[in-house]
Amino acid sequence: MTNSFMPPRRTLMGPGPSDVHPRVLSALARPTIGHLDPAFVDMMEDVKRLLRYVFRTQNKLTIPISAPGSAGMETCFVNLVEPGDTVVVCQNGAFGGRMKENVERCGGTLVMVENAWGEAIELEAVEAALKKHPGAKALAFVHAETSTGVQSDAAALCELARTHDCLSIVDAVTSVAGIPVEVDAWGADAVYSGTQKCLSCPPGLSPITLSDRAVEAIRARTSKVSSWFLDLNLVMGYWDGDGGRAYHHTAPINALYGLHEALLMVEEEGLENAWARHAKMHAALRAGLEAMGLAFQVDPQHRLPQLNAVKVPEGVDEAEVRRRCLADYDLEVGAGLGGLAGKIWRIGLMGQSACTNNVLLCLSALETILVDMQANVNKGVAIAAAHEALG
Amino acid sequence: MTNSFMPPRRTLMGPGPSDVHPRVLSALARPTIGHLDPAFVDMMEDVKRLLRYVFRTQNKLTIPISAPGSAGMETCFVNLVEPGDTVVVCQNGAFGGRMKENVERCGGTLVMVENAWGEAIELEAVEAALKKHPGAKALAFVHAETSTGVQSDAAALCELARTHDCLSIVDAVTSVAGIPVEVDAWGADAVYSGTQKCLSCPPGLSPITLSDRAVEAIRARTSKVSSWFLDLNLVMGYWDGDGGRAYHHTAPINALYGLHEALLMVEEEGLENAWARHAKMHAALRAGLEAMGLAFQVDPQHRLPQLNAVKVPEGVDEAEVRRRCLADYDLEVGAGLGGLAGKIWRIGLMGQSACTNNVLLCLSALETILVDMQANVNKGVAIAAAHEALG
Repeated sequence: MTNSFMPPRRTLMGPGPSDVHPRVLSALARPTIGHLDPAFVDMMEDVKRLLRYVFRTQNKLTIPISAPGSAGMETCFVNLVEPGDTVVVCQNGAFGGRMKENVERCGGTLVMVENAWGEAIELEAVEAALKKHPGAKALAFVHAETSTGVQSDAAALCELARTHDCLSIVDAVTSVAGIPVEVDAWGADAVYSGTQKCLSCPPGLSPITLSDRAVEAIRARTSKVSSWFLDLNLVMGYWDGDGGRAYHHTAPINALYGLHEALLMVEEEGLENAWARHAKMHAALRAGLEAMGLAFQVDPQHRLPQLNAVKVPEGVDEAEVRRRCLADYDLEVGAGLGGLAGKIWRIGLMGQSACTNNVLLCLSALETILVDMQANVNKGVAIAAAHEALG
Repeated sequence: MTNSFMPPRRTLMGPGPSDVHPRVLSALARPTIGHLDPAFVDMMEDVKRLLRYVFRTQNKLTIPISAPGSAGMETCFVNLVEPGDTVVVCQNGAFGGRMKENVERCGGTLVMVENAWGEAIELEAVEAALKKHPGAKALAFVHAETSTGVQSDAAALCELARTHDCLSIVDAVTSVAGIPVEVDAWGADAVYSGTQKCLSCPPGLSPITLSDRAVEAIRARTSKVSSWFLDLNLVMGYWDGDGGRAYHHTAPINALYGLHEALLMVEEEGLENAWARHAKMHAALRAGLEAMGLAFQVDPQHRLPQLNAVKVPEGVDEAEVRRRCLADYDLEVGAGLGGLAGKIWRIGLMGQSACTNNVLLCLSALETILVDMQANVNKGVAIAAAHEALG
């Protein structure tokens, strides 16, 4: 016989999931009720309102998709891209590559604008691509690249899309609640996120928001959406209050209890305060790492506070460092992806993980392990530097 | 400010979700760890083994899809059906209609075999269709139609598929752990289920199992799977132990804790005992309902024990009965769908909901409400009849 699974108690400082607050964990364990129960339907209204709050939008179509972030991405593409549509995709990391896959599978015509991994998306190149392809249906880009820790200029990119009369599709998986995401101010059209990053909820749901312009584009489709499960025409029938709820699929009830509680916690803290906390914890971590002599992969003006890509010092076995973090400190730190595999660590400061204790634990653990491995780092200075940055 | 959501405490006797045991609820609330954490990877192995147990299969590819049952259905279709493939779809209720939608969206050529809602799939008609379309790629059918409470002969249908050299796609959403599902004995090729029915787990995951023959068909595809999220070539890279785990999407960690615990509970009870319990509780409910003078929609040999389609007596406002069940007894009972809307109630006895107390509560509530509404039912006999059937 197998035993019940008792997970170890980790501190999560990888690229997500982030630490989940006991309030959210305990919400998950509340009794399951029906997905058409009037009490549940009321809760769905709260969730929509709270999602509008974190996305900074008035968009009516603002809901959580009943599957992880990659399904949120797919929802935007399969609903907005019809076979033959031209889509300009910006790639500067792993998730831009996934957008490319999505466009191909939708039968779209792909125009790639590529930047090196670790660099921000270059606006001039995007503008040139849009000028060269005047009939493009959409411009797709990643606001916060989880694979590299780079932030791109979402406001400017959305404006370029508007100027060239195409829809913007924005990956905000890692950005929502960690740095400003301003869906309405940007004029963004389709934005998706995940729950397991700066919202500090377990993975499994993908909040999305679509502008009226995007909804019109879906309504104007001449072909059926290739996915039944992600067809927003049908999903809206369940999440939209007008004229009762039509059964589409069975919503993940308990996961939605968790999201509701996690969103409440963001609202209680205040979104601006959450952004400031992420910035402050990043400053402290950075001060400690730099005091130790470690360097960042990304230049300062494009760094995400919540995802720190830190260069592995020469000669250090990076996987062994992560293995020891986990074994000795129950601390999860992320590996590099793609071309950056083996070259960087990804240290997350997302949601509940963006706190003083995590910063101090991470610095202490890294210093101890690196010194023990005889890496070339400065000893005994990281914690003081972090404390100074914390003020 | 919005408050935390405290769900009412319901008894769930609709078409799913079913009652979730406190052990499973409490598993959901265990601390979140990473989806590549070695401890989590070990748990994934347990989940695969336990799913093989409930599906009665040795299929290597037996995993939970990270989204509700309808995504499990879509996974089978998008992976197995390529544009131009002929698929014979049997429809005798709502979910056969959803299979039809899936085939259309995959670009498949559809051959429908239709039976009336509430009747089982007729084997002769299926055989005729397979003979008429000798190159058909797949035969798709619903084992346990949740919309009507009908069971079809899965063993015979899978055999017909084998005989005509096509793959079988089987909807076992409501059947797994409630009545015998024998994937290997049937020779079924692609079978999907849900967690919120007889497994008594919250909704949100979809267990699937694919035969080696089905896996070969996926490997032999000449076109890419239209969905990136549900592409089993990629999903297998994460769930398959050979040579390490490749990141695909972030697995819904806490939901998987819940599924692990729910599957353990089925294993502890024993699958055969769970089937027997469902049959016994159905017999008790039936005895009580029939004593009251209520009738079933489905003929006895095709009735599902876990989903009872009960005819609404002449002149009774069925929605008002359900409303009062919920308001006065915190009891959820399901409505009819499609052509049976307004004509039947769907009373679920699934998983943890298949227990004596639920049967008695349901009979008591229905009797009290129907008598109060002056419906033509026999008074004071249902509970004794149920007790007699319980023995």
